[in-house]
Amino acid sequence: MGGDRAPEQIVAGARAVADAGRIGVLLVGLEGQMGDTGDLPLLHCTEVIGMDDDPGQGVRRKKDSSLVRAAEAVRDGNAMAMVSAGNTGATMASALLRMGRLPGVIRPAIATPIPDLKKDYPTVMLDAGANAEATVPMLLQFAQMGAAYSSKRYGVGRPRVALLSIGEEKSKGTPLVKEVHAVLAEGGHGDFDFVGNVEGRDFFEDEADVIVTDGFTGNVALKTLEGTLRFLMSTLTGILTQPEVADAADVLFPHLLPLAGKLDPETTGGAMLLGVDGVCVISHGSSTHVAMVNAITVAHDVAVDGLVDAIASSVQSDADTLAVAAD
Amino acid sequence: MGGDRAPEQIVAGARAVADAGRIGVLLVGLEGQMGDTGDLPLLHCTEVIGMDDDPGQGVRRKKDSSLVRAAEAVRDGNAMAMVSAGNTGATMASALLRMGRLPGVIRPAIATPIPDLKKDYPTVMLDAGANAEATVPMLLQFAQMGAAYSSKRYGVGRPRVALLSIGEEKSKGTPLVKEVHAVLAEGGHGDFDFVGNVEGRDFFEDEADVIVTDGFTGNVALKTLEGTLRFLMSTLTGILTQPEVADAADVLFPHLLPLAGKLDPETTGGAMLLGVDGVCVISHGSSTHVAMVNAITVAHDVAVDGLVDAIASSVQSDADTLAVAAD
Repeated sequence: MGGDRAPEQIVAGARAVADAGRIGVLLVGLEGQMGDTGDLPLLHCTEVIGMDDDPGQGVRRKKDSSLVRAAEAVRDGNAMAMVSAGNTGATMASALLRMGRLPGVIRPAIATPIPDLKKDYPTVMLDAGANAEATVPMLLQFAQMGAAYSSKRYGVGRPRVALLSIGEEKSKGTPLVKEVHAVLAEGGHGDFDFVGNVEGRDFFEDEADVIVTDGFTGNVALKTLEGTLRFLMSTLTGILTQPEVADAADVLFPHLLPLAGKLDPETTGGAMLLGVDGVCVISHGSSTHVAMVNAITVAHDVAVDGLVDAIASSVQSDADTLAVAAD
Repeated sequence: MGGDRAPEQIVAGARAVADAGRIGVLLVGLEGQMGDTGDLPLLHCTEVIGMDDDPGQGVRRKKDSSLVRAAEAVRDGNAMAMVSAGNTGATMASALLRMGRLPGVIRPAIATPIPDLKKDYPTVMLDAGANAEATVPMLLQFAQMGAAYSSKRYGVGRPRVALLSIGEEKSKGTPLVKEVHAVLAEGGHGDFDFVGNVEGRDFFEDEADVIVTDGFTGNVALKTLEGTLRFLMSTLTGILTQPEVADAADVLFPHLLPLAGKLDPETTGGAMLLGVDGVCVISHGSSTHVAMVNAITVAHDVAVDGLVDAIASSVQSDADTLAVAAD
């Protein structure tokens, strides 16, 4: 039921995945309001948490909503993963309240893939907005969970983890960032290498595999990056579709399309909520059937591949250090 | 002496401005190391604060450095404004320690112009990195100083001021952001209209004339925006310079160049340090003579136009409210 193009595009993506035969898809939504669902299994609910609903209230009050029922399906073993293009906060809250936190996890975080053309897999940035504020132990866990995710999802052997700051030097940033830098620089917090601070200009520079930051900064950075890409792409499209350059544009389009494809958020499979006891993919509100196919496929594959166990292990191995850092 | 292309490009820009006749330029630097300075007046110093020097230590220890001497020239009335493409922190520290803060200003802020093609003047974002941390009264003053700057520099009658956050709703963001939102929403803090929160994706959407944020978030956002533009522009240039598309590229270049020009940081005149008792322009480290011409011209024009008095008035009119907000 969620997303700007629901239910048509969501259902179309789900059907395309199911038709391919490898992955089964369970649709959760209002009876009779999901359009042509083909022969997909349906889980009917009576409520929907809308884009403008308060996430916490929505989950508490709308117990028979599609988001809550989807999270319960994962909790109860009736689904391996949930995918939503709806209200991000409510998706997060449903997953957190119904699946629960993994043991030792202070706060879940949203991990978002950012395409970096200088390598053949995306950089993972977290937290992209689950928590407006962070503490030292939270940011350490984000590093651990992000590294485990980069390994599981993209096969990176020993991910390079960086801290987002306003200068490369360890003396740069807020007191929080400086403290996290010091703790990460000690090493020994997991199967990753801390490569120091990166700046906002480094997202496309192959400086790191995982970029750690608080959810406020991460959300601003991600939306700035996406907004800048969208602005420039649409301005270019405007120029290339002027009649007087039509012939030249025809020659160039085949060369530009692969770039547009690589940078398109539709192709990345969506963001992942890390730290809850289940797989939860948060897709863009603007998701089409293409984005849905990718999101559902990724959700399935990381679930089969044991992502949740890997995330759980990544934080538990370091619980003592985190307790010290929290003091 | 400052910047990646100093002294050649810096001196070339200064000479070009002086040759045009309207603006006099005083060069500050090491004797015999500024290249061909033509007949420009020179102020010789014996030290330079380098890009890797600690800003505070640099200013305290290198009292005969070009940055410190330039700031003293403004303080002593021997120059109307200073311009540097050198160490940003040291430029800021020199201006702050030698010119001093304006009465009532809690902390100076770096105001950076961001081109928005949907209107014919840039959006001003502050703080772009002067202060890693901010308080409610500081952010209120950034709103006031930013509005005064937008008016003086771009002639905006009653600037639209927005707060950078992670959602449009007043409930979104850190406690600091929510508190600042509430205070700005009261109105009555100056000659501007508070238009609420904007997000990172709104920089190019004509949502505001002034975007207020803390220096950490602002610096990350600005560098993310600049890095994304640079990445995409250089990727496009790579595509357009392939031999097999040479003819099509020749047709398109004249259509693409104006866009590149409008987005080029070289054309904006650089960032401005607001809240010190003098005009201080902070240029990109990569500044060429073109950037220098723009920066020097802007520095001169806002000085003549009374920017410093306008900034001083903008914060003083609201001193009582700020004192309350600080409690």
